[in-house]
Amino acid sequence: MPALSDSATTVSELRERVLSFVRERDWEQFHSPKNLTMALSAEAAELMEHFLWATPEESRVVAADPARRAKIAEELADVVIYALEFANITGLDVAASIEAKMAANARKYPIEKARGRSAKYTEL
Amino acid sequence: MPALSDSATTVSELRERVLSFVRERDWEQFHSPKNLTMALSAEAAELMEHFLWATPEESRVVAADPARRAKIAEELADVVIYALEFANITGLDVAASIEAKMAANARKYPIEKARGRSAKYTEL
Amino acid sequence: MPALSDSATTVSELRERVLSFVRERDWEQFHSPKNLTMALSAEAAELMEHFLWATPEESRVVAADPARRAKIAEELADVVIYALEFANITGLDVAASIEAKMAANARKYPIEKARGRSAKYTEL
Amino acid sequence: MPALSDSATTVSELRERVLSFVRERDWEQFHSPKNLTMALSAEAAELMEHFLWATPEESRVVAADPARRAKIAEELADVVIYALEFANITGLDVAASIEAKMAANARKYPIEKARGRSAKYTEL
Repeated sequence: MPALSDSATTVSELRERVLSFVRERDWEQFHSPKNLTMALSAEAAELMEHFLWATPEESRVVAADPARRAKIAEELADVVIYALEFANITGLDVAASIEAKMAANARKYPIEKARGRSAKYTEL
Repeated sequence: MPALSDSATTVSELRERVLSFVRERDWEQFHSPKNLTMALSAEAAELMEHFLWATPEESRVVAADPARRAKIAEELADVVIYALEFANITGLDVAASIEAKMAANARKYPIEKARGRSAKYTEL
Repeated sequence: MPALSDSATTVSELRERVLSFVRERDWEQFHSPKNLTMALSAEAAELMEHFLWATPEESRVVAADPARRAKIAEELADVVIYALEFANITGLDVAASIEAKMAANARKYPIEKARGRSAKYTEL
Repeated sequence: MPALSDSATTVSELRERVLSFVRERDWEQFHSPKNLTMALSAEAAELMEHFLWATPEESRVVAADPARRAKIAEELADVVIYALEFANITGLDVAASIEAKMAANARKYPIEKARGRSAKYTEL
């Protein structure tokens, strides 16, 4: 099986992989939106835990550490798997949702006002 | 601009959109792995909040409610945007990470043992 | 050492225990509000993970299971320890904050309107 | 009503306040362990969001800012309220759980090995 890569894989292809895995195990019964968002949240917290006591600068070093990197990639995969399965179960389109959200973000954070600032749009 | 859709959009295309948005605003300085996983975790919690007091079955109804659906799509978009930006900053390949994680999951959860069961692999 | 119990222990006594533990290890340098809320969030997610695939009703059974109960008590302790240490570091009074928040909640959720309903106050 | 304070309030007194509030509104039906840990996790994330883009050092300044402080105190209260209500519903004793967990932590993190280090006990 040729390896997948971001440049050659559509979001739908990933969604279908996840869906097949779930259906083969008859797990859709457990995959309510409530349960999937709990799982997603728990996996996001596990990813975050890798960087708990590091400073932001140190966290860049942690993420580049080969010994940590494999584990970090696994946690990232878990997060995206649950996000895609949430899209499968709810019928939402991830790419369209991102496009719409980024258009809204562009209005909230105009380049000239937001450049180099981390303040929330309500405080710009 | 033609609308994006999961079936016609690669993961890389989404990653590049996010990266352009961030670079135009000179926000990479804030996007350490530590900060991005905090943001990801916070957005995952916001998505989860939509289903807080609903039963799992009721959460399917909540997710189908047109009035809620637009907000839920926004929170899902935020989660995936931060996951993709985390991939941008760390250089991880999302599709390859998912493929590797699903292969590991397939070993931990063989179909015949895992079918119809929500138990953790250590308890199968 | 006599065992502590909720009925005979003030919040301050617990706060001081946590503070001593931290100071003996010279850990205050790591205990910025940012880091402590990340740790708190990660521990809350670990507590939540015990109930991930259970229905709300099943989760009551899980919490009563003696084998699980010890682990659940540990996660709960971790959550409260980090909350108390956050209070230590920021100088907030937990009991006063709770009293003020419950007074605000009582105004948002008057008994006659909120009884038996899980809706957010904005939707009552 | 005299104001509560940490030095004069036992954990049980706080637990009873929370329980009365919940019972008056007939909310125990919604307070399964599953739902309460979701709520706790969501509130912990809201507390964390105050410090999202700040460095650890800057987060100390944020927490001292009078304008932010009232909001931060509210989020902290929410976290502890849900932790106490989880204790109410499961019958766990918070102080005893903390005492037991700190004893275990003291064994995992002996002072001489852990002093001034943020590493996990498995890496000390």
